[in-house]
Amino acid sequence: FKPGKSVPMSSATPQKSAVPLRVGIAGLGVVGGEVARQLSHQADHLAGVAGRPFQITVVSARSRDTDRGFDMAGIDWVDNAAVIADRDDVDIVVEMIGGEEGVALDLVTRALETGKHVITANKAMLAHHGTRLARLAEENDVALMYEAAIAGGIPAVKSLREGLAGNRVSRVSGILNGTCNYILTRMEKTGEPFDAVLADAQTLGYAEAEPSLDVDGIDAAHKLTLLAAIAFAQTPQFDKVAISGIRDVSAVDFAYAAQLGFRIKLVGVAEPGRMPRMQTCLLPTSTQLAKVDGVLNAVAFEGEPVGATVQTGPGAGAGPTSSAALSDLVDIAAGRIPYTFGRPVETLLDGSKVENGGGPDTPFYVRLMVVDKPGVLADVTSVLQTHGISVESLLQQGRAPQDVVALVMTTHEVSVDRLMKALDEIESLSCVQAPPVAMPIVIADQEG
Amino acid sequence: FKPGKSVPMSSATPQKSAVPLRVGIAGLGVVGGEVARQLSHQADHLAGVAGRPFQITVVSARSRDTDRGFDMAGIDWVDNAAVIADRDDVDIVVEMIGGEEGVALDLVTRALETGKHVITANKAMLAHHGTRLARLAEENDVALMYEAAIAGGIPAVKSLREGLAGNRVSRVSGILNGTCNYILTRMEKTGEPFDAVLADAQTLGYAEAEPSLDVDGIDAAHKLTLLAAIAFAQTPQFDKVAISGIRDVSAVDFAYAAQLGFRIKLVGVAEPGRMPRMQTCLLPTSTQLAKVDGVLNAVAFEGEPVGATVQTGPGAGAGPTSSAALSDLVDIAAGRIPYTFGRPVETLLDGSKVENGGGPDTPFYVRLMVVDKPGVLADVTSVLQTHGISVESLLQQGRAPQDVVALVMTTHEVSVDRLMKALDEIESLSCVQAPPVAMPIVIADQEG
Repeated sequence: FKPGKSVPMSSATPQKSAVPLRVGIAGLGVVGGEVARQLSHQADHLAGVAGRPFQITVVSARSRDTDRGFDMAGIDWVDNAAVIADRDDVDIVVEMIGGEEGVALDLVTRALETGKHVITANKAMLAHHGTRLARLAEENDVALMYEAAIAGGIPAVKSLREGLAGNRVSRVSGILNGTCNYILTRMEKTGEPFDAVLADAQTLGYAEAEPSLDVDGIDAAHKLTLLAAIAFAQTPQFDKVAISGIRDVSAVDFAYAAQLGFRIKLVGVAEPGRMPRMQTCLLPTSTQLAKVDGVLNAVAFEGEPVGATVQTGPGAGAGPTSSAALSDLVDIAAGRIPYTFGRPVETLLDGSKVENGGGPDTPFYVRLMVVDKPGVLADVTSVLQTHGISVESLLQQGRAPQDVVALVMTTHEVSVDRLMKALDEIESLSCVQAPPVAMPIVIADQEG
Repeated sequence: FKPGKSVPMSSATPQKSAVPLRVGIAGLGVVGGEVARQLSHQADHLAGVAGRPFQITVVSARSRDTDRGFDMAGIDWVDNAAVIADRDDVDIVVEMIGGEEGVALDLVTRALETGKHVITANKAMLAHHGTRLARLAEENDVALMYEAAIAGGIPAVKSLREGLAGNRVSRVSGILNGTCNYILTRMEKTGEPFDAVLADAQTLGYAEAEPSLDVDGIDAAHKLTLLAAIAFAQTPQFDKVAISGIRDVSAVDFAYAAQLGFRIKLVGVAEPGRMPRMQTCLLPTSTQLAKVDGVLNAVAFEGEPVGATVQTGPGAGAGPTSSAALSDLVDIAAGRIPYTFGRPVETLLDGSKVENGGGPDTPFYVRLMVVDKPGVLADVTSVLQTHGISVESLLQQGRAPQDVVALVMTTHEVSVDRLMKALDEIESLSCVQAPPVAMPIVIADQEG
């Protein structure tokens, strides 16, 4: 800005140009291929919204021979993606290779160093190396954009970075992994156990053969790391996220939760000054996040003055993810070049030093498997009372003297530490027949 | 753009500045007052995200004496809002007066003419005069922004204009009036008639003393007009919207709809090449829009390649609406100056000349009040058959020979014209005791 000038840019509204913005695409898989097809088939539309045309100048992918549904005439093919960074005929590198390090990180680093804008869907890379890459982007006065990395078709990054920029964000919570949400929704509907539903999801293509990144919550935690960085103006710190996945969720808990007015979801929660958490939790059925089923993703933003606003949409797949990458392309063409995490890196809080208050006090869902005999309830509640934990509601299913039955309860707000101590003690009671199951209850947005 | 330059702006990332961006606020009501309070109390936070500070230099409102919760020291007061446009110490005019014409339109026109950015929540003004104002903004190289005009806390304008910019939008549908959604939700829950719920909503402050703008669908149609303009790159044409409100909705229809798997909402639907419609309609209970209750708003975007994505949030009130206005302020400070409707006015389709295919063929919900005697069903279905209308499902409640009972059905896709002809004929049958009730069924987003 020129000090004293009232209009911040020398020319405010984006100017049109006939000169194409030259795009190099590394990786022509599901998403990269769709970006290329859209750039080819919707060229006029995209030039219209962007104010100038795009031109794919170079691509790289594993196999040259596949027909990818767009015309390769005039497009260079390179076997080594890394060389795209050094080409003179590329303004924007679209990185769709994936992987936390390796070729993707080399390519993106080099592209930023040589003054190229970068668009990526690579949450793992950004969650681990985001600070360094953001600094590189700034030093070279280019964009590093990743709308495609989080919740596919939901414009979550833009909404948080710009659409809600005036807010002091108090919480971002999200259903950020479609595979997990699909599995949990199926378990709830059919009562099938995790392993059976996972196997089926793998057959249907909703889960990978190696499902760990998804079902252990890691992929979702990568996304949560980035959302937290933008929301709280801090450097991304993946290793500060407390992560648990969905492998341990038992099908019986869905029915008990439902009777108490809750649904079970894998939800990421980030709050200022607290450890971000990726965890299975209970959501009141009347809240918006609780209503998001199947492979859909959702993000709830809470802040002052907005209150709460929730976005839902497809979190993965060629169409939704390429839509996100295209919006980044249009932003760059229109001159809307953001800071990677919404602010200059030098002004971000150091995420590794952010005060970490642990998890907040929340209500909890607790399920105990107990022998149904007189005095059990008194024994259990006595331990809870000792630890200052009060019970909000209680559910005991059926009556089967001397049989093992479920004793399900919800507590008032309590710290996870205090609850764990109480549950350790409860587990040692003679009437308790299995390790207690506990999940936090999260009220992530208003009813409606 | 300098042709041949690879980076579109002379300086890509927004530059920081210590020079304040000077803001004049016209109207210190619910929203204008909150914008002023946020600018005062969250000054550091806003300067951080915007890259430079904001300074309120002048305000105007009806009464000088009210304590509005922010420090007026150093802020000029003017009685005539229009003079804000001519002040040298204003970069951005925030118009929160309201009204389709009058002071608001004069102020905004003059502000744009004198090269000031304008932020407004005035959907009525933009729905009627948007094209002219957008042209003025472009000629003077300033922003005319209105995130606050549509669905309050939902960043719908930015999502459509930028977040989904790469898409060819096939439909935008929305629950765009919180008052109507509150009334319909209450009617559904309690079975009370419209008039009683409206009176109660007025007492609670959810509805205006003069409720017509809300309950007749006009306010929501203003918003739909603007969303359609951005989505389909056309000039806003309020008079092309088919508008019906919620006054005629009967409480009994909610129960019938529920039995058939639907909920009743006032939904605006805009599609390319079709008349935008603001209408009460049935939504399958499993879709996202159907789950939005009470005063909440929601917008569903459908397009290629994204598929469908839905945003929900508070549609009105000080906090949500000021959040939207603040995001526009931050955008301007950061140099993100958009075209008013996403593209230069000269490239927009002329909304008055856009081919208007009328409403699309949709399934319909039809309720007839008939005398319960043999042959009635045959008479009714015979008329439908004559008009080529086939019935999807049918519901007849109770059995009360010679009494009047409800005959409820859903049809397969049919044009509204053909349905109306059939219903005219049905109404003349001797067994039919009241004018038929018909509402379209809209499937606005995927299940989830």
